[in-house]
Amino acid sequence: MTEPYTLAVDAMGGDHAPASVVDGLTIATERHPGARFLLVGDEARLAPLLAASPRAKACCTIRHAPDVIGNDCKAAAALRMRAASMRVAIDAVAAGEAQGVVSAGNTGALLALAKIVIKTLPGIDRPAMAAIMPSARGDVVMLDLGANLACDRRNLAEFALLGDMFARTVLGLTAPTIGLLNVGSEEMKGHDSIREAADILRRSHIGAQFHGFVEGHDIAAGTTDIVVTDGFTGNVALKTGEGALKLVGDLLRQIFNSSLSSKLGYLLARPGLDQMKIWLDPRRYNGAVFLGLNGMVVKSHGGTDAEGFAHAVDVAVDMVTHRFNERLREGIGRLGGVLAEPPGKPGPTLAVSRS
Amino acid sequence: MTEPYTLAVDAMGGDHAPASVVDGLTIATERHPGARFLLVGDEARLAPLLAASPRAKACCTIRHAPDVIGNDCKAAAALRMRAASMRVAIDAVAAGEAQGVVSAGNTGALLALAKIVIKTLPGIDRPAMAAIMPSARGDVVMLDLGANLACDRRNLAEFALLGDMFARTVLGLTAPTIGLLNVGSEEMKGHDSIREAADILRRSHIGAQFHGFVEGHDIAAGTTDIVVTDGFTGNVALKTGEGALKLVGDLLRQIFNSSLSSKLGYLLARPGLDQMKIWLDPRRYNGAVFLGLNGMVVKSHGGTDAEGFAHAVDVAVDMVTHRFNERLREGIGRLGGVLAEPPGKPGPTLAVSRS
Repeated sequence: MTEPYTLAVDAMGGDHAPASVVDGLTIATERHPGARFLLVGDEARLAPLLAASPRAKACCTIRHAPDVIGNDCKAAAALRMRAASMRVAIDAVAAGEAQGVVSAGNTGALLALAKIVIKTLPGIDRPAMAAIMPSARGDVVMLDLGANLACDRRNLAEFALLGDMFARTVLGLTAPTIGLLNVGSEEMKGHDSIREAADILRRSHIGAQFHGFVEGHDIAAGTTDIVVTDGFTGNVALKTGEGALKLVGDLLRQIFNSSLSSKLGYLLARPGLDQMKIWLDPRRYNGAVFLGLNGMVVKSHGGTDAEGFAHAVDVAVDMVTHRFNERLREGIGRLGGVLAEPPGKPGPTLAVSRS
Repeated sequence: MTEPYTLAVDAMGGDHAPASVVDGLTIATERHPGARFLLVGDEARLAPLLAASPRAKACCTIRHAPDVIGNDCKAAAALRMRAASMRVAIDAVAAGEAQGVVSAGNTGALLALAKIVIKTLPGIDRPAMAAIMPSARGDVVMLDLGANLACDRRNLAEFALLGDMFARTVLGLTAPTIGLLNVGSEEMKGHDSIREAADILRRSHIGAQFHGFVEGHDIAAGTTDIVVTDGFTGNVALKTGEGALKLVGDLLRQIFNSSLSSKLGYLLARPGLDQMKIWLDPRRYNGAVFLGLNGMVVKSHGGTDAEGFAHAVDVAVDMVTHRFNERLREGIGRLGGVLAEPPGKPGPTLAVSRS
């Protein structure tokens, strides 16, 4: 896509905002010269930051928003803060001024605002939070990561379809494989909702891509390209995996600093070790996407730095330039028809597309 | 405890049984000279294995059991296999011939048999599966790991109490800290059952040890000594963490083998790297315990080798020699009285101890 595009950026969200956001845009600008940013937040704080970064300044327009939604703010309270940076940024997407929004702010507030202001696409019951993570066999898409704590069979099946389109678009796969996260790979394992979602998927148009159940260790093994689960389990699994990687990273740092001999050892093995560090760097996987909304919404980790925020911008740019939402809209038509309920199991049916 | 004790061992459970089991006992015997083992399984296969290992033979008695419960066998079918090695081993515990049982067989069958044959302790609603895992701040106890896929507030609160006694007994801690696994540390996060379990725990006799909610990354960080969650989430988190550690281990192996220079680098940093490898070795954490039963039941990973099986035996020995079940029996009396339901929230109350 060569047309110019604009991303609204919540300049005030995140632990190190707004400096980390402006610095992140400075990095992102170099990678995406076609991008324009609507930088939403406290003008008095943003103007000097941009003045200090001519590269960011050249592609940013400041939009003043005096309020900030805090991390402890409940979603209901956040919905009433119409002058908050996150809200004004989301309003810009709803108004068509921007094709997407990036925020490192309060996740619950971002989801609630996105659902209310931008709205879900017709035919989609609930948006899901998806992200890419590293595995032994390449990048893996995982969802839901916390947008929906409890999910029924219909939600899980829908997440599989959203993940399929996401993996096709962002990873460029033609027939990504799909796994449903469970406590065992045998058919009788797990909650009813998971077994029933498996039934739905097997009979759907992506049935050939459906691998079946996968377990926790299959995520890092890359057994499937997509791992589908409810938001509670997905959130815990994501953070547990990150925690385990951090533990080993910290240990390696201690080991290589523990003696002269091991320092020398590090230097000798450095090319590979540095490559691994870059590859597993959580900042490289920063940027979770809310799939199924009427506009692109990307959530950056609140604690990330400029480099991490730039990666979240990368994700938003990827989604916009690959016209993910237009493709999703076209794809949704297939959801309603194909995902019928399994015989003898009456229950909620998928809303038929009205798009 | 200097009295002799006997553990029943399911010789036929596990991917490499019975050889890995007998070899595991050979290793365990050296560490626990006071242990006697009732080795249950196909005598025709076990006798030659023991003949080849005089050390194991000296402390093992074979009990013939012709059948084996397969990994795909459903619990209901397993309950009918009265001549299966796992069943005969569990029967020995129920009959008082052995103080505990170790099996690397089908987890669901082991749990079902244990509940029916050995039975839960009076005052305990559901047994939980607990294990020890590594963290930046030392060993952490996590439960439930898969015995109860869906849990209410009462179950979660009970798991916290079981975990508390387990950590006191096996880790020797006087006031272990307890975290409830959630998607965020703020009070309003998560399912109702988790928030309500937190209410119960805050007002219980272990309220001072209750840290509050912890997230996935807190497991490896060792934020609390005990991490409590439902069996579905716990199973996924355990395997996700193991998978992440395996990914890094495999990458490090590749890196250190990729060139002469990095091979030399490994040799220079070897003491620390080997120590880390030993410390994070999943075999060292093998042996999950079903807590809350009328006898010790330890589940070894099905895919482990002799070294891993020996660690599962270590866990069983630890529990028996520390008289865990007697202490638990004494402790249960406190459960019923102290864990009242929060005001205004009627629901299942904890069964009062009859012990």
